[in-house]
This record gives sequence, structure tokens and C-alpha cells, in this order.
Amino acid sequence: MPRSNVIKKDTFHYQWSKSHKPVLNIRPGDRVHFEVNEVSSWQITEKSKVGDLMKMDSSKLYPLAGPVFVQGAEPGDALVVEVESVRPGNWGWTAIMPGLGLLEEFTTPELYIWNLRGTGRRAYANFVKRIPIPMNPFCGVLGVAPPEEGYFDVMPPGKHGGNMDIRHLTSGSRVLIPVWTEGALFSTTDVHAAQGDGEVCVSAIECPGEVTITFDLKKHANLETPCYYSKPLFGPRSGYFGTTGISPDLMEATKQALRAMITFLQENLEITREQAYMLCSVAGELRTHEIVDRPNWVVGMMMPRPLIKEDPAGRRKKPRS
Amino acid sequence: MPRSNVIKKDTFHYQWSKSHKPVLNIRPGDRVHFEVNEVSSWQITEKSKVGDLMKMDSSKLYPLAGPVFVQGAEPGDALVVEVESVRPGNWGWTAIMPGLGLLEEFTTPELYIWNLRGTGRRAYANFVKRIPIPMNPFCGVLGVAPPEEGYFDVMPPGKHGGNMDIRHLTSGSRVLIPVWTEGALFSTTDVHAAQGDGEVCVSAIECPGEVTITFDLKKHANLETPCYYSKPLFGPRSGYFGTTGISPDLMEATKQALRAMITFLQENLEITREQAYMLCSVAGELRTHEIVDRPNWVVGMMMPRPLIKEDPAGRRKKPRS
Repeated sequence: MPRSNVIKKDTFHYQWSKSHKPVLNIRPGDRVHFEVNEVSSWQITEKSKVGDLMKMDSSKLYPLAGPVFVQGAEPGDALVVEVESVRPGNWGWTAIMPGLGLLEEFTTPELYIWNLRGTGRRAYANFVKRIPIPMNPFCGVLGVAPPEEGYFDVMPPGKHGGNMDIRHLTSGSRVLIPVWTEGALFSTTDVHAAQGDGEVCVSAIECPGEVTITFDLKKHANLETPCYYSKPLFGPRSGYFGTTGISPDLMEATKQALRAMITFLQENLEITREQAYMLCSVAGELRTHEIVDRPNWVVGMMMPRPLIKEDPAGRRKKPRS
Repeated sequence: MPRSNVIKKDTFHYQWSKSHKPVLNIRPGDRVHFEVNEVSSWQITEKSKVGDLMKMDSSKLYPLAGPVFVQGAEPGDALVVEVESVRPGNWGWTAIMPGLGLLEEFTTPELYIWNLRGTGRRAYANFVKRIPIPMNPFCGVLGVAPPEEGYFDVMPPGKHGGNMDIRHLTSGSRVLIPVWTEGALFSTTDVHAAQGDGEVCVSAIECPGEVTITFDLKKHANLETPCYYSKPLFGPRSGYFGTTGISPDLMEATKQALRAMITFLQENLEITREQAYMLCSVAGELRTHEIVDRPNWVVGMMMPRPLIKEDPAGRRKKPRS
């Protein structure tokens, strides 16, 4: 890989904005390697104690690796993000931060530091009492610049993707993110070594990491929210195709995700909207991907990939570099 | 199996009530075979047309097979429902019924009749355009008499279980339902040959069927809502343990399910509530099991079974009969 396609860890920005200058200019088909900083910009380290949690400067959360300018990307297109690999660093943390997280009764901060050494080999990291947690690394944040002028916090995800915390976006998955500005201006951060659907206490196994992505474009995709193909587990057509709904209201987010799936199935399978609605009822799977990134929650409607026709856009292929 | 442990299809009741006389009196460890009628009491048949949908008498929905009196079951206990087999009949239906279902814009009724012959062998049934839908048979309704006096519609699920529409309750799964009255008074209905998480259009593959269940008791379980062990897929300790939240508000249902899981994990793994909360965040999976049985939605918090200690209560064993 040419050096120019590496974004080193000394190159990052805070907040989403179409005013940020790109740090890399690539063509569709190019592969980029990202060195991703720890999500608090190293305010938490492997040696941190619980008291350090409450001293954090929140303006230093979410150091974004990027932005990457993708030639030819225009509003209305989808940026195809093929996640080739996500490698966690050798430690991580999970915390209860009172005031954040789903349950208001947890008013005492708590910090757990994970030893992730060897997890590439063992596939598990130990929680308390040696409870084995399966590793499932992915990027909590994968996004592009939003359409509006200005600077926007990373915390809430939106139609630009961002902090979606979708645990299904591991290596081997493919995400389509609507493009809102010329060049898309893609950035990523927030490597999670593992996370449940929901991320209920507000943190996953937060860790630094290295991420390799190949980019492509789907022209005129006209998506309203991101959608994804999860990693095939048993053969090339297993796994899920998922649509997302993103809203402060879970019911509204669910309806958005369902409508996006119906629209997709109608075209993909050449069936009526009514048939697509029934198909979702008998075979779709509704999950709450995250319910803590205030004020927006992400709901996924997931359809087993064997039921749909594969979309050639962004299909795994040999990257140009 | 003695004839007395069969509930034939001419024996059914409508509505939940602790005033219903039991049709069978069994001991923990007994196995019961249920012949389950089609969910509209055969107002829809394999020959029905879409016009028949809107003529249905709603008082004839949900013919419940039961009630079964389980000796020794008292309020505060959990009835352990070990689902041994669920066999769909040879046809089923899925419908859009305007006014029901998640999306209000579907105002035209639609009916699809499924041919389920041979699905035990093929494992798939064909939708339009021969789209293959994997068979995943389970009972939409598994419940006991609620604590209150009176007669209650089956449509909304509640702390007595009932119309939970949890697609994970296939053969090989085990459900624990809180007991609210002496003998529990268990009934079942609404066999689904397949359903997604959510059952978004308000119907699954609705079909008649035959169901075999072995019952047990977990004394003094003190559950607030049902919980379940889904079928082990790869070895005896795979699959999920799930807790449920049941509420007209998805956020509230999610919090209920999460709190129930935290309470379970605290005791099961002998960890603190804070540790249990973090464990849910890194490894739990939030799903919307049903979002159409007004006014109550069912949210599940699912934890992979390898992470927990197995509960011996209701563990698969040789049934008495």
C-alpha cells in the first residue's frame, strides 16, 4: 500500500463538518489504512482509575481519522465502505458514566480495563471472574460530512452515518452511507473490540486500533439513511442486509428502518410494497443497534442475505492499491 | 403418552381468565400434546380470498388450547415450559389488515396463502417469486392466567406471557413464565411457521399445528416478566438466554428487559449490578420481538448462553409420560 493511503494517528479532527480540509484524496476502488486513536484522545489509558473518568474533557472525545475525499462522490450517491480489517490495540476500557447510558439508577462511575493482548489468537477477552467475552471488532463511528454548514458533535449519529455503533460492521461487512457533499469527506473512529446490540451502559470495549477500508461509490443510490451487508458467516451469501432508522424516538426509528427495507426489497426482488411488508413480517429481524448516543437511537431491520439478490455495488474485489 | 395428556382441537377457550376451568391436571415433569387450531378459529382457510379477511369475527381470534392446571404451581413460582416440538399444519396465511400492523400507510388488505406441505423436509416455504422463507415454527402465544379477576383479550401480551410472538421459542427452547394463580392455568395458540423479530405487518405465517410441551416448576422464581432459553444451535450451551420487557412504550420495555437481565446476571454470575450492566453493554443483544400486539410491545435482551451458568430448573430431562 502506498504511504499516501495511510492516515497516521497524528492526523485527526473533532466534529463533523464539510468545511474540514481532506487529508487524503482517493479514487473509488482505493484502499486506506487508518490508525485510530483511543476514543477519549488518550485521556483514558491502560493505567487509568475510575476517578479519571469524571475529569475527561468532552471536547476531546471522538478523534476522527480523516477526512478522506473520494473522487466522484456527489450528493445523492452512496459511499460504499468495505471494511477489510479492524484490529484492536492491546487494551480497552468499559465504563459506567452517570448521566449517560440507558438506566438512570446507575449513579456511581465504574471503570473496567481490558487486557486485549492475544485476543486475535484467543478470540476472547476476560471480564471479571474470567467471564469470556467474544471479540467482535468494528468501528463505532463510520461517517461522512453532513449536508448542513457548521460543525457537529460526533455523539449523535444521523443520516450522515457517524456514531452508529452497529456491531454488525465487522471486517467482511460493507456499509453504504449517503453522500451529502462533494467528495463525501469520510472519517472513522471509536474502535470497539466488542459491543452488544444497544451498547446499553454507553460504552463498549473502547480501544485504539488499526482499520483498513476499501472505498467505492454507488452512484445515485438516493439513500435516506445508511444500510449495510454484514459479514457472511457461512458462505458468501449468508449474513444480513440491514437498513437503519435513526431518530430520538424508537418507534419512529423502527418505522424508518422498515420503510427503507420495504423500498429496498421492492426494487431488489421486483415485488410490490405490500409483498415486501409481509416479507419483513415473516423473515426480517428488528434490533436496537444503539440506544445511548443521545439524542438519536439507531434501529436496524435485518434481512437474511439468502433472501435477497446481491447488489454488485461495492462487492469485494481486488482493491487498486 | 396417555390419552389424557392430549388436548384435542375441539377443546379450546377464548380470553385469559383465572375463572376458566382447567381441562387437564398434570404434575411437574408431565408432557402434554396440544392440537392447536388456526388463529382465527378457521375463519381463514386455505381457500380464503382477501375479501374474507375483513369479514372476520374478532371475538373468535386466538382459540386457546388449555387451560392446563399444574399441581404445585403458586404465585411467585415460574412455570417452566419446555417446547419439545412444534409442527405446522400443511398450509398457512399472512395478511395485511389495515389499521393493524406497524405502518399506517398500508390501507389495502392483502392475503397470501402458503403451501407448507413438505416443509418439514425442505425447511423452506415459497413466498411470491419462489422467495424461500426458512421455516422456524413456534407458538406465538404461550401464557398463564393473569392475576386479576375477569376476562382478558389475548391480543396484548403481559406479565402472564401470552401473545409474546417471540420467534426464538422454537422446539428445543425453554420459557419461564411467572405464575399468578394456583395451578398456573397454562394455554397456548397461534402457531407460526415462521416470523421475523417484530412481526411488523401484524401476521406471521399463521397456521394450525401440533405442539408438545413438557412442564416443570421453578419455585419462588419471583419473575416480573417471562424469560427464555432459546434453542441451542451448536452444542448444548449455545443459543441465548433472554429476558423480556413488555410495555406500550419501547423505551420502557427496553429498560424493563435490561433490568431483568441485570438482576439475573447478578445472581447467576455472582457479580455486582454495575458489572452486569457493563456485561450487557459489551455482549447483550437487544431485539424487538413484537411491535404490533397493541398496546404492548415485547423487547428482548438476549445474552449468549456460553456467558452464563445454566439454570438446572427445567433442564431437558426424560418426561414422566
